[in-house]
Amino acid sequence: MTVNQQILLDNRPQGEAVESNFKLVQSPLPTVGEGQVLVRHHYLSLDPYMRGRMNDSKSYAQPQPLGEVMQGGTVGEVVESRHPKFKAGDKVVGMGGWQEYSLLDPSVPGALRKVDTTHVPLSYYLGAVGMPGVTAWYGLVKIINPKAGETVVVSAATGAVGSAFVALAKARGCRVVGIAGGAEKCRYAVHELGFDACIDYREHPDTKTMAKALKDACPNGIDGYFENVGGYIFDAVLLRTNAFARVALCGMIAGYDGQPLPLANPALLLVNRIKLEGFIVSEHMEVWGEALTELGGLVAAGKLKPRETISQGLASAPGAFLGLLKGKNFGKQLVKLI
Amino acid sequence: MTVNQQILLDNRPQGEAVESNFKLVQSPLPTVGEGQVLVRHHYLSLDPYMRGRMNDSKSYAQPQPLGEVMQGGTVGEVVESRHPKFKAGDKVVGMGGWQEYSLLDPSVPGALRKVDTTHVPLSYYLGAVGMPGVTAWYGLVKIINPKAGETVVVSAATGAVGSAFVALAKARGCRVVGIAGGAEKCRYAVHELGFDACIDYREHPDTKTMAKALKDACPNGIDGYFENVGGYIFDAVLLRTNAFARVALCGMIAGYDGQPLPLANPALLLVNRIKLEGFIVSEHMEVWGEALTELGGLVAAGKLKPRETISQGLASAPGAFLGLLKGKNFGKQLVKLI
Repeated sequence: MTVNQQILLDNRPQGEAVESNFKLVQSPLPTVGEGQVLVRHHYLSLDPYMRGRMNDSKSYAQPQPLGEVMQGGTVGEVVESRHPKFKAGDKVVGMGGWQEYSLLDPSVPGALRKVDTTHVPLSYYLGAVGMPGVTAWYGLVKIINPKAGETVVVSAATGAVGSAFVALAKARGCRVVGIAGGAEKCRYAVHELGFDACIDYREHPDTKTMAKALKDACPNGIDGYFENVGGYIFDAVLLRTNAFARVALCGMIAGYDGQPLPLANPALLLVNRIKLEGFIVSEHMEVWGEALTELGGLVAAGKLKPRETISQGLASAPGAFLGLLKGKNFGKQLVKLI
Repeated sequence: MTVNQQILLDNRPQGEAVESNFKLVQSPLPTVGEGQVLVRHHYLSLDPYMRGRMNDSKSYAQPQPLGEVMQGGTVGEVVESRHPKFKAGDKVVGMGGWQEYSLLDPSVPGALRKVDTTHVPLSYYLGAVGMPGVTAWYGLVKIINPKAGETVVVSAATGAVGSAFVALAKARGCRVVGIAGGAEKCRYAVHELGFDACIDYREHPDTKTMAKALKDACPNGIDGYFENVGGYIFDAVLLRTNAFARVALCGMIAGYDGQPLPLANPALLLVNRIKLEGFIVSEHMEVWGEALTELGGLVAAGKLKPRETISQGLASAPGAFLGLLKGKNFGKQLVKLI
């Protein structure tokens, strides 16, 4: 009998998340019921939002239940189907979780869909042409809504969201400035991803020096900001915003552990008449079709070449996830299972 | 020869504004040129936004020039006109400034317009049926855009903006909760202005107790917030917001003097997917007609009965203004000149 390895949330973090919050177990492979599909996962997606769900506190999503398989996006191949629209061999993306196999019910909206790997590698459906890509699309198109010639800034620039953001924003004629950690990531952002400039936050570790760097990189000020991080970088960006700037608030990774990070000068939101919107892309399913079409087109045209950091084997997932939270990944963080 | 008393900005505040920042002078009455109108002011409007303009720092408006008459809204009567659309005796509202008479050019947009005092007292055109009323209207209608049954909250509840806000929000079927300073203002808010509940911030001087009071007053959470104040009240409101709440950011009076007040937990903007917008009503002239029509109708129908605090004589303006910044006024703060 084939065994299904799984990673459960064993206990909730006290402050910083640690490996012992997770537990690797083995289960028997489930039996496929009428209308169900058994998928063997090729890749598992690791995303910052998962950290928030490990807490039992009020947040935008239900907490990850204790003792259950960690939830998350997966791509893979159908190995057995009792659903008329799927057959063995189909490449699929779904919410299979941190395990080698999942049993999914395609009649649940968003649970499973077939993908075409002719022009787009399978793993990209977890990144550039998946949730992170649509996240970048929604924040840029629906919230920032830039005009050609405007300057837009994104933090976590070389991550899955940032990589998609720059391709989408360049396609709209913007000046695009990234913020990332380390000279290597910044070089990559400019030379490979197409950023007009990239600021290394390690070289600018406080609001004042970051604001100065932003002034140099954004000589016409900042019209749109895609916030993936929070903390002093947001403070610095606000100091350089133009009147009527728009802020898409997507992540505040720096605040997930421990105490909340304050915003130093919220009065700037008024002074510059800023429009700010927090969002979760899974609540805007109506845009996914349009967004994925544009993102897939950019990949096929070679204008979106996202980088991936791949760890090998399910057991490596907790460590890779904790590294992601500390910014150790370079591009989309995946776990390869096969 | 009649003399025109004027108050100039003599020097800029170092931290808190003080009376010696202002200077009372006397000038000869100006001669009326072709196309001009001389207005004798009956009332002068005092508004929190004037404090921001006393600074020489970057803000949404040009700083008030030093050595010139303090700018501000006025209502009065035309005493001499060399403009075809105005005649002596006309009641008018304009930006006449802190002086007894002003010479205005009606061809400048927004400089001067005639008003009808049949159903609306002249002074109301500086408050409920003027800039503060339109401010409330814009924030409620264009930003918060509430559905009937939703709960909306406004700080500085008994001020000119708050009084208009509650009338407009009740007309839309909302539960309306105010925040004001002192038991007398809170009683007035509920018994005269029509608030469903009013919280005395003096009884709840920190985030935790204010959040508890808001929980009691808003059992279904907060769907919309009109921010006139900033500081810990904003922190407390954010703790009680529902998903997809909207925040109209209009004033941060607590931050005008000295250091900026931080926002303790901006991650809540993401967690609750909040839409926040800073605005200045003078940049949205396109809504004034619609807004003033509704506000005038509410006054005529007895559904908007704003309170006024009136100080007597031009020389009292600086003291009354400093009192306004400390919340000593009760309703719209005016200076009566005649």
